[in-house]
Amino acid sequence: MAVTTTQERQIRPAGPTQLDVLRTYCESDLVRVNRLIVEHMQSDVALIPQLAGHIVAAGGKRIRPLLTLASARLCSYGGDHHVGLAAAVEFIHTATLLHDDVVDESALRRGRDTANAVWGNQASVLVGDFLFSRAFRLMVEAGSLAVLDILANASAVIAEGEVAQLVTANDTTTGEAAYLHVIKAKTAALFAAACRIGAVIADRPHPEVQALDSYGRNLGVAFQLVDDYLDYAGTGEAMGKAAGNDFREGKITLPVVIAFARADSEERAFWQRTLEMLDQYDGDLARATSLLRRHGALALTLERARGFANAARAALASFPDGQWRAALGDLVDFCVDRAF
Amino acid sequence: MAVTTTQERQIRPAGPTQLDVLRTYCESDLVRVNRLIVEHMQSDVALIPQLAGHIVAAGGKRIRPLLTLASARLCSYGGDHHVGLAAAVEFIHTATLLHDDVVDESALRRGRDTANAVWGNQASVLVGDFLFSRAFRLMVEAGSLAVLDILANASAVIAEGEVAQLVTANDTTTGEAAYLHVIKAKTAALFAAACRIGAVIADRPHPEVQALDSYGRNLGVAFQLVDDYLDYAGTGEAMGKAAGNDFREGKITLPVVIAFARADSEERAFWQRTLEMLDQYDGDLARATSLLRRHGALALTLERARGFANAARAALASFPDGQWRAALGDLVDFCVDRAF
Repeated sequence: MAVTTTQERQIRPAGPTQLDVLRTYCESDLVRVNRLIVEHMQSDVALIPQLAGHIVAAGGKRIRPLLTLASARLCSYGGDHHVGLAAAVEFIHTATLLHDDVVDESALRRGRDTANAVWGNQASVLVGDFLFSRAFRLMVEAGSLAVLDILANASAVIAEGEVAQLVTANDTTTGEAAYLHVIKAKTAALFAAACRIGAVIADRPHPEVQALDSYGRNLGVAFQLVDDYLDYAGTGEAMGKAAGNDFREGKITLPVVIAFARADSEERAFWQRTLEMLDQYDGDLARATSLLRRHGALALTLERARGFANAARAALASFPDGQWRAALGDLVDFCVDRAF
Repeated sequence: MAVTTTQERQIRPAGPTQLDVLRTYCESDLVRVNRLIVEHMQSDVALIPQLAGHIVAAGGKRIRPLLTLASARLCSYGGDHHVGLAAAVEFIHTATLLHDDVVDESALRRGRDTANAVWGNQASVLVGDFLFSRAFRLMVEAGSLAVLDILANASAVIAEGEVAQLVTANDTTTGEAAYLHVIKAKTAALFAAACRIGAVIADRPHPEVQALDSYGRNLGVAFQLVDDYLDYAGTGEAMGKAAGNDFREGKITLPVVIAFARADSEERAFWQRTLEMLDQYDGDLARATSLLRRHGALALTLERARGFANAARAALASFPDGQWRAALGDLVDFCVDRAF
């Protein structure tokens, strides 16, 4: 297969990102979302707000709740339920992060700087459950069974995707289609649901609901692929976390899927040793990154991400031109061009 | 404090238990509940039905779904939603069991014969999440926001109770009030919710909703206390699991709380070594059981259980006499007199 010559990344201009712009548009709603988040993670059991605060109040990009807020605005929603639902979406996301932290014995020994490392598996699970339950209470307050169905369904699909990933973890022969199937479930389902509910609470006709679902789903896949790319190509400084995490955990992401398919037998042995057997030494991460570049796997991952990003942008076409459509379109650029 | 002379247990007559009688009354509903359970745990990801089947389809007493079915019948509910809600209640229970299986490294080393031991922490968490999400989908199908609120709230309270227990785990100075507070949350909240929703879907007035809540809550506490009792006094044969699990895991249950409060300094050192430091040897379980008996802790635990059982029975008084009230009353006897 020919090695692609696609540019890996363009230089991003300094100044506020497209995410910052969207955040500014949603500022008053976002303040209320953050207030709800803090309120609903309270409990008489002190460890709960303590551990939840470690992960949810610490900030993060809040992309998912922003999607709910902006989608509702795009659909001219005039009510107030988008705020609670945006908080619910962030709680579901946080619960999955906490549950992702749960590891088995072997992984624990390699050490992780997560909530888990500080409080242990059991606390991560239970606080995740608590936030998940609170998410459903927030949804009940919004009073829409249709919304509850969308988010309950998305949650089940996320869990399915995570189990599917677990089953194929450390399997270097994972194909591109199988990999995309997993990230559509574990990442894109919540992006899709976050957008979809904006149209549903605004009582928009089915094609608009579907269009926002498609926007979110394609954006979610693009977002995850850029995550995969950054884990090898990003700088730890910009990301606020060390690059190479996926490699150290033996995660099979798209760059590896591509490079493995193009590898010679000696390179395959390298991937098998490092990712399947997790037998890693100094210099292995550098060698992995160099193999990914040699086979154009990083550039091709970005190219795939851009394809999904284009599909996300196209899904917005049926909405009237204006501030919100522009901001959601620009968010697609942010998700692809981001350095963190 | 004087050692109580309460009888530990009476001999239970052979023949069908009160649980069997209630099961017979609910038989056609229960068949549909079991069918829904199997249907809703399906997934294209094969590990999910496999692992879920290990725990949920394996049977169990199905007390919680029976409570929903019988409560709805007691309230003359004429609809069909009690079946799906009973399945949802069982899914929530199963999800908490799976999440209870998640252990930290130290516990893993002691070995456990659970879903976790076979598939690992991560799978237990994710399949639990899947079942929890499916529970909410079943609730959405029932179409009642009030019911969703009750079960979302109960789920949050269960998680709070489990975290509270985690925080006080291996702490031999836990008092009786603190212990009862934990089991009211981690066990009784779901019993209460399971009963409460029976009255809510039947659209009964608030006092009846409250009465069924109180029945379930008191029954749940009694049930848990008898569990605690059986873990020392029961026979592994009748329970289908080994006695002494709580001891081996260092769980502080009511018998230990009572015995520790009455212990001399040498006995306190024994409890601290075995339950706080988990430094256990052959003969320790036998010594623990003998200490519990010497201080009347097992008999007193049963006496406490009977107190809650009486409160559960009393809560039924406002309902009309008949088959369902009698069966729910008899279920209280089962929960106290059971050997498993």
